[in-house]
Amino acid sequence: MTYCVAMRVDEGIVFLSDSRTNAGIDHVSTFRKMALFEVPDEQVVVLLSAGNLAITQAVTQSLASQPKTDPQSIWRVRSMHDAARLVGDAVRAVHARDAQSLSQFGVDFNCSFIVGGQVRGEAPRLFQIYAAGNFIEASTLSPYVQIGEAKYGKPIIERMLCEAMPLADATKCALISMNSTIRSNVSVGLPVDLLVYERDALRATKFATFDEHDPYYGMLHTTWAARQRSVFDEIPNLPWPDVPTVPPPRVAPERTALREWAEGAPE
Amino acid sequence: MTYCVAMRVDEGIVFLSDSRTNAGIDHVSTFRKMALFEVPDEQVVVLLSAGNLAITQAVTQSLASQPKTDPQSIWRVRSMHDAARLVGDAVRAVHARDAQSLSQFGVDFNCSFIVGGQVRGEAPRLFQIYAAGNFIEASTLSPYVQIGEAKYGKPIIERMLCEAMPLADATKCALISMNSTIRSNVSVGLPVDLLVYERDALRATKFATFDEHDPYYGMLHTTWAARQRSVFDEIPNLPWPDVPTVPPPRVAPERTALREWAEGAPE
Repeated sequence: MTYCVAMRVDEGIVFLSDSRTNAGIDHVSTFRKMALFEVPDEQVVVLLSAGNLAITQAVTQSLASQPKTDPQSIWRVRSMHDAARLVGDAVRAVHARDAQSLSQFGVDFNCSFIVGGQVRGEAPRLFQIYAAGNFIEASTLSPYVQIGEAKYGKPIIERMLCEAMPLADATKCALISMNSTIRSNVSVGLPVDLLVYERDALRATKFATFDEHDPYYGMLHTTWAARQRSVFDEIPNLPWPDVPTVPPPRVAPERTALREWAEGAPE
Repeated sequence: MTYCVAMRVDEGIVFLSDSRTNAGIDHVSTFRKMALFEVPDEQVVVLLSAGNLAITQAVTQSLASQPKTDPQSIWRVRSMHDAARLVGDAVRAVHARDAQSLSQFGVDFNCSFIVGGQVRGEAPRLFQIYAAGNFIEASTLSPYVQIGEAKYGKPIIERMLCEAMPLADATKCALISMNSTIRSNVSVGLPVDLLVYERDALRATKFATFDEHDPYYGMLHTTWAARQRSVFDEIPNLPWPDVPTVPPPRVAPERTALREWAEGAPE
């Protein structure tokens, strides 16, 4: 599996992806799940992918192969909505070519994507694309999208993220979300790729890769765990004698069983 | 859906279950997912259930209907392993009766259970039972089991729980895990049922139900969120100028596309 998350705040967008891929437990590898379609001063389009690696690579490849001269290509989008539509179209093209063959081998057409960034003349935008090629846009009320093993890392985002959060804080939030996921699910693993897009930069300026030897990621991993523990310890325990207790949900033997039991009847 | 969790520590076992049930989004109700088969001084067997409510109720009912006089019944187990086996057998009996009919309506045979407690002469034990009727026992290295929407609430357990943890701390850990799940997933909801079994008590002494008006649950909800926020704020941001940056994963236009682009060829 995979975990990718992107968060759109007022100052820009944070993109974060892990790199673990597995086909069964005895075929685990490391693949990059982030791709950048950058035309400086014109567009920064970031694609994150989850699902069957053959499918997601085929989609990325088909986008990359679009001629730069083609005004309908991923290299010349007029809006991020255009970019999301192009990714959806590429997914549908791969589906048309591969889905039936995969199905003959019992393989689902499993893929999902995050597309985000900025096109000149527009604000930064963020989309999630499904295997059917349809997509949704992150909103003010829910300014983030996740694909892959999304559940482990969701609570920290739900507790912390808001659009007004500084980009630096959103970055930290994404890394903690990833760290929680990696701790809980062996199918998500280091290294992780981080791209922080600064609003109106129209080029990728901040990109870093973190592995287990990175000092910042190591600090975050250790500090978050230790401080969670101290917060946990600070919270008072349930004050049992004063808790309003009710009878527990005891199962009453059925009438028949009860009669048999009362009468000492043989079964 | 549902979220149920049970944690076995040296001092006993914590059982916690939510109460939300839904069949589609327009049929949401509240059902208790905990059942207690208690014979004071002999056994405390707690059953938590997740999945299709008709199936889990049928399983619970068939166990409850077993005559108390029957030495093979849930009321007279000689070990917790016996109890887990009886639940598995009951699941298989319901499957034999219902699965084909359900299948004709496109309904999966979806159910899972947690069974735990103590039988006189044994230490407390904890099991998870699958829809196929097979089961696993919680171990020293992994002293907890979860069913239903388990992923949201797993990181806090993975970070905190160990067998040596006092029962009161395990209770707090379970409640925080439930709180994180309820915040992140609308299919899991209050009230929650909490049963704290104290080792060697051989009866259920501590049971409570929490809804949104409960002062302790409210305190835990508010305090955990606020303190998470302060820990989050304490952790330093990524020190960007000093982060070893690498080139971002820019997609290189394909050779063909590149040539077309360089030559300004029409598409």
